[in-house]
Amino acid sequence: MRILGIDPGIATVGFGVIDVSGAKTAHIAHGVIETPAGERLSLRLYNINKDVSELIRIYRPDEIAVEELFFNTNLTTGISVAHGRSAAILAGEAAGIPMYEYTPLEVKKAIAGYGRAEKPQVMEMTRRLLALAAVPRPDDAADALAIALCHARHAGSGLAGLGAQVRKTI
Amino acid sequence: MRILGIDPGIATVGFGVIDVSGAKTAHIAHGVIETPAGERLSLRLYNINKDVSELIRIYRPDEIAVEELFFNTNLTTGISVAHGRSAAILAGEAAGIPMYEYTPLEVKKAIAGYGRAEKPQVMEMTRRLLALAAVPRPDDAADALAIALCHARHAGSGLAGLGAQVRKTI
Repeated sequence: MRILGIDPGIATVGFGVIDVSGAKTAHIAHGVIETPAGERLSLRLYNINKDVSELIRIYRPDEIAVEELFFNTNLTTGISVAHGRSAAILAGEAAGIPMYEYTPLEVKKAIAGYGRAEKPQVMEMTRRLLALAAVPRPDDAADALAIALCHARHAGSGLAGLGAQVRKTI
Repeated sequence: MRILGIDPGIATVGFGVIDVSGAKTAHIAHGVIETPAGERLSLRLYNINKDVSELIRIYRPDEIAVEELFFNTNLTTGISVAHGRSAAILAGEAAGIPMYEYTPLEVKKAIAGYGRAEKPQVMEMTRRLLALAAVPRPDDAADALAIALCHARHAGSGLAGLGAQVRKTI
């Protein structure tokens, strides 16, 4: 099974593609979609939607995992991120691919074993689980790989069991 | 000039279509797009996007005015509304139509003359400006007509001058 993980955003959308077969996971690709801050919102959303559609066309994922949003500090940023997230989700729905969402806590728990894990630990575990020579860059791409791995552990693969939460469809 | 006003949401998206010619405004249509609460988010977004595209195809607006979002009380609702707003904006961008946004305060100011106007006053003024027999129903459709009228007053039509704010593109 191929999973596309998405770390939603408006300026930067992280993506990570992995293959899961039994207990084995393989890294396929990772990267970011970027939209310039000076560009109008509608065009940024349009490009995010187009680029996620293109990623789906290229990598043909069976399922998509997207991080759930929480507004902690900056509400204005939160509104923009929610807009960007919607543009990405629309691409998945248009392609008819099942989508699932996980909170940052669930991702940390699934990858590092506990929800209070620090970011470097989660990144290092992501690197190890995918047998990469170095921690994936940039951070948003590494986050997206972690989200994909989190979904692999919830999706009934051989890696299941570390996270016991019921996966939520979007 | 034809204006499509949109009151964004996830369960209910209000829309209102008006024609503006010099100082004259004419009511063309109003209504709501609804998505069931039980449906998955991605499908609700997909349907909002599809239905706004259909409205654009039918009414061929020259410009679109969308209400700006503010999160006052419920953040979870705010995230959903932002997702729905993005789905509507994407339809406008895909059709290549210029879009503008106005705060609720700007809408009230443009329609009723002052930002602290009560909702019934705004609705009654919307009814009068469009020479309708009754206040448009439901509320979200009336709000969308008010947003369209607000844009008409900012768009250099004969009605300009009541609101002095610079219109903001989305």
